[in-house]
Amino acid sequence: VTRVLITGASGFIGRHLLPLLVSHGHEVHAISHSRAPLLPGMTWHSADLLADGAARSLSDRIRPEWLLHLAWYLEPGAHLESPVNVAWTEASLSLLRAFAAAGGRRAVTAGTAFEYDWSAGVCEERETALRPVTLYGVCKSAFASVAGAAAPALGVSLACARIFWLYGPHEPSGRLVSSLVQGMLAGRPVTVRAGDEVRDFLHVEDVAQALVAVMESDVTGPINIASGDAVPVREVAHRLAAMTQREDLLRFAAEASGEPKLVVAAVDRLTGELGFRPRFDLETGLTATVDWWRSAAQRASR
Amino acid sequence: VTRVLITGASGFIGRHLLPLLVSHGHEVHAISHSRAPLLPGMTWHSADLLADGAARSLSDRIRPEWLLHLAWYLEPGAHLESPVNVAWTEASLSLLRAFAAAGGRRAVTAGTAFEYDWSAGVCEERETALRPVTLYGVCKSAFASVAGAAAPALGVSLACARIFWLYGPHEPSGRLVSSLVQGMLAGRPVTVRAGDEVRDFLHVEDVAQALVAVMESDVTGPINIASGDAVPVREVAHRLAAMTQREDLLRFAAEASGEPKLVVAAVDRLTGELGFRPRFDLETGLTATVDWWRSAAQRASR
Repeated sequence: VTRVLITGASGFIGRHLLPLLVSHGHEVHAISHSRAPLLPGMTWHSADLLADGAARSLSDRIRPEWLLHLAWYLEPGAHLESPVNVAWTEASLSLLRAFAAAGGRRAVTAGTAFEYDWSAGVCEERETALRPVTLYGVCKSAFASVAGAAAPALGVSLACARIFWLYGPHEPSGRLVSSLVQGMLAGRPVTVRAGDEVRDFLHVEDVAQALVAVMESDVTGPINIASGDAVPVREVAHRLAAMTQREDLLRFAAEASGEPKLVVAAVDRLTGELGFRPRFDLETGLTATVDWWRSAAQRASR
Repeated sequence: VTRVLITGASGFIGRHLLPLLVSHGHEVHAISHSRAPLLPGMTWHSADLLADGAARSLSDRIRPEWLLHLAWYLEPGAHLESPVNVAWTEASLSLLRAFAAAGGRRAVTAGTAFEYDWSAGVCEERETALRPVTLYGVCKSAFASVAGAAAPALGVSLACARIFWLYGPHEPSGRLVSSLVQGMLAGRPVTVRAGDEVRDFLHVEDVAQALVAVMESDVTGPINIASGDAVPVREVAHRLAAMTQREDLLRFAAEASGEPKLVVAAVDRLTGELGFRPRFDLETGLTATVDWWRSAAQRASR
């Protein structure tokens, strides 16, 4: 039994991860502001990681062997340029040091596609330059570079999961797939910006499975968590419209986004070194997602 | 009168900076563990910036308009790979946020030549890639990238001074020039490693003058603090030996250092945008330094 500390445990990815960690027999300690359901074999710890000394006190009390650090500020529409990213950079470094000081041995942290130089198109962990243009990307990248360089001196085996685009059940409102599905199911016209952009989407349950696979491996350094498939945003929108039979509600904004057209992950590390295979392709993933939002809407209307 | 907060105020650069800031008429608040002499118009604050909440409490009390952040862990022989660099990264970000929250408007932080990709030879602020290979360089670079990206959102005008090699009075023992001069004056054989390396040296008083010039300007982003002159380490050693008339004590280690031969700064920003001219060239700077160590030795022996 391995004692695992997971931060951001009630977030979009975290809530899909908890049952996996528990079912793999780990002793799970979950940190969050808000509680999700309690599963057998896990403990919730209510804590604010941005508070002075919080990471130290948690690490000393729990003495985790593994750390899965997902918590960050991710408010849709605000998080890319908020100075709160700076506070999360500090808190994340502080957590890593406290974890190491309390005897922690293996950590996986959440990085992002926003760390890469998107002009490259295909993002390879060891080849593609990092050139984040958002404060969020700069802070995630700075945290990952310090964590990666400090890990040997801290005695921690560390992997940084660079997570690309994702969707699925429990996605916060105001993001691409959640806002399209919610709009279509409610009968509201939905406008897709940047339909020409080609991105890399993975179902959140596959993201969670991949993170557990990374955690349980001895992979170190950056590793992309993505499908490796390049899909136009426009196609995601059309598929959702077809699934909800609301093509009539779909609009595309005319102006270009100004961002690089193609951003897709190389997934050689994930599929080759880890042997990971996603459970969902885009069609089955989006179908499951629409079904979930439909049930959620029905639950809400009862 | 501008209220300036300076950290690392009793350090190698800091102690040369204090009289300059005071003579320019600023209201100087100096933070340090250990006190240097009190000058008229300045206040010492004893504080440990690595302690929880220290930066916030200082900033709220002093409410500085300007911040000159020099403090870091710089123990010769240990600082390049120490995990204490991580703590200083957190503390520096925390200080910048606290300074901004307390109404601060202008900040200059201490970066380093160790941020650059040294294979470039000549390091230009906007052109040369950053590829630090030490934990110290990684942490300084991560701090600078987050600080630079967050500055607009924090309402702070921020310059990051990338300081190259320096020498002069009060240099801590165990560094290049200090150990050579101290050895020669004491009559001990001194061995120079990596004599073939060509580096960029500036007298610490010129470094201090340059930092004040940056502080008082509205330059933002990275700016090299250096001479722009490429000087072989071997030449520094020979000049010091000639000045102390102890060529007989000088040895050169045979093995190569494995580091890039040439690392020199482009100083177009410093000399062009700021019009800065150093007071010392290498010969007058080293002469003044040897004189200072000689007096220091005499003071110590009385």
